[in-house]
Amino acid sequence: MAELTPHEIVRLEGDAVVVLDQRHLPDEEIELRCGTATEVAEAIRVLAVRGAPAIGVAAAYGLALAAERGDDLDAAYDVLAGSRPTAVNLRWALEAMRDEPTRERAERMHEDEVERCRAMGAHAVALFPARARVLTHCNAGGLATGGYGTALGAIRAAWDAGLVERVWVDETRPLLQGSRLTAWELERLGIPHAVIADAAAASFMARGEVDLVVTGADRIAANGDIANKIGTYGLAVASAHHDIPLVVVAPTSTLDPSAATGEAIPIEERDGAEITPRFAARNPAFDVTPAALVAAIVTERGVHRAPYAETLPREAAAAR
Amino acid sequence: MAELTPHEIVRLEGDAVVVLDQRHLPDEEIELRCGTATEVAEAIRVLAVRGAPAIGVAAAYGLALAAERGDDLDAAYDVLAGSRPTAVNLRWALEAMRDEPTRERAERMHEDEVERCRAMGAHAVALFPARARVLTHCNAGGLATGGYGTALGAIRAAWDAGLVERVWVDETRPLLQGSRLTAWELERLGIPHAVIADAAAASFMARGEVDLVVTGADRIAANGDIANKIGTYGLAVASAHHDIPLVVVAPTSTLDPSAATGEAIPIEERDGAEITPRFAARNPAFDVTPAALVAAIVTERGVHRAPYAETLPREAAAAR
Repeated sequence: MAELTPHEIVRLEGDAVVVLDQRHLPDEEIELRCGTATEVAEAIRVLAVRGAPAIGVAAAYGLALAAERGDDLDAAYDVLAGSRPTAVNLRWALEAMRDEPTRERAERMHEDEVERCRAMGAHAVALFPARARVLTHCNAGGLATGGYGTALGAIRAAWDAGLVERVWVDETRPLLQGSRLTAWELERLGIPHAVIADAAAASFMARGEVDLVVTGADRIAANGDIANKIGTYGLAVASAHHDIPLVVVAPTSTLDPSAATGEAIPIEERDGAEITPRFAARNPAFDVTPAALVAAIVTERGVHRAPYAETLPREAAAAR
Repeated sequence: MAELTPHEIVRLEGDAVVVLDQRHLPDEEIELRCGTATEVAEAIRVLAVRGAPAIGVAAAYGLALAAERGDDLDAAYDVLAGSRPTAVNLRWALEAMRDEPTRERAERMHEDEVERCRAMGAHAVALFPARARVLTHCNAGGLATGGYGTALGAIRAAWDAGLVERVWVDETRPLLQGSRLTAWELERLGIPHAVIADAAAASFMARGEVDLVVTGADRIAANGDIANKIGTYGLAVASAHHDIPLVVVAPTSTLDPSAATGEAIPIEERDGAEITPRFAARNPAFDVTPAALVAAIVTERGVHRAPYAETLPREAAAAR
């Protein structure tokens, strides 16, 4: 097994956007063909394709597909933008497609996204100690980004540099993106890893078995507050308690300078049946980690440190 | 639906110890009949019956069964004591049976255990604010204790006193004792509740939706360090970060004055396949919460506050 190629994860092929359906991994590798922007939006909504950068790329392909079909582009834009509320990359990618809603533009965006991941990885290596035992949450790998990965890209780069001893993979309930997707990617890459229950992470920190926590992000406010998969905030609190740095790796497309703080970020609440079909449940898909608990934010342009409000908005403006 | 009776949970009936098999709840109510002490030990090992006080009661019935059968009592003692390593109640119950390994003694112990739960509940009510939104982890209900419950007993008593607005139920991976067992018990009792992913707990605290955290314990060291279901420690760290009291409710049979601190408590590591059958996994079943993060420990004798080392060992001695 080898690294997934970007086109295995998502591509525009003939008259369909084709995604590797992440709901069936790791058991089966099934492709889902989406013949319209509405079908792409549905694939995003049901998490067949997921991860902030990857859903941006999928939406871009969806808009290009709509343009080739001669569909109403405003309607296509709206259905794609409305598929999930928290990741700002979705809207960013659609905006970037507005002037040139073509297949070539979407493919260039996809290539750029992977290039940005490689750049983030190169910057992030400096934050890894030797023999690092790294904990990560959810999946911020190639699957989540259309190739290479953000948090997992950083881990890959550090592994290539000989700095990683092993990776602790939070299983990431309720949909198990850690034990289904991240473990699968790490296995393909040959990086030593072990899955743990989300609730075990603090205990492994207390035992001295975690040196660094690395996650992606779905949206980053102007002050450095981070929205990411539910559970990131609890990890951040535990990391701070144990003096373990939490590093967030995300492209500039994840920055939302229009959100002054994390309070302005909409948090998607998903169906409680994802938790239990039998009893009442609450299922927020994301949480907000205050900037004060984040040791560094790594983008394709470099490593940001607090106070983030001084550098993040400037970088977001430069990237647009 | 009504409250479970103690004998529905575990009993010695004819020539078998009968347990309500908790592995099948809430979908099916299936009884498991154990004809020997070895079969009782196996039922404990596979978690058909679980919860520190309940496995003590089951083991007591198992020893009485061995005595009635004329089996080797030392061998029965050893196989029962070795079924799980962390809960000290198991060994405590077996020791208490040594002088009188009879059915009557085991039944008396079972009744006493339920009485102790009711006493704990009565003491714990004083720790609940009005309109309390209470978070609990794992299952420390009637199922875990042979009747009424420790943490859930406290919640029941506070509910009866009009103090509980709702209960947040950590689903409690990997075996979902929260979403399978605690939610089922709360539904039967008519107490409003919602299940959440374990990793969401800190986020609900940050939103100001949690007033109190209440858990049971599997073993309590002389200094007040607590061994409990994996995830309790992370909850304790998050509770401290948000100035939310964490209250532990457990009978004196859970006290282990021979363990000076939590470091002396053996932590059971279970099969990684409980987390994921496909990839490498680590699966500690318990963690240790330092006494400094515990606001109060409630036993059947009253409410303990730090410094616990001054009162817990004395109480343990008085109870023996």
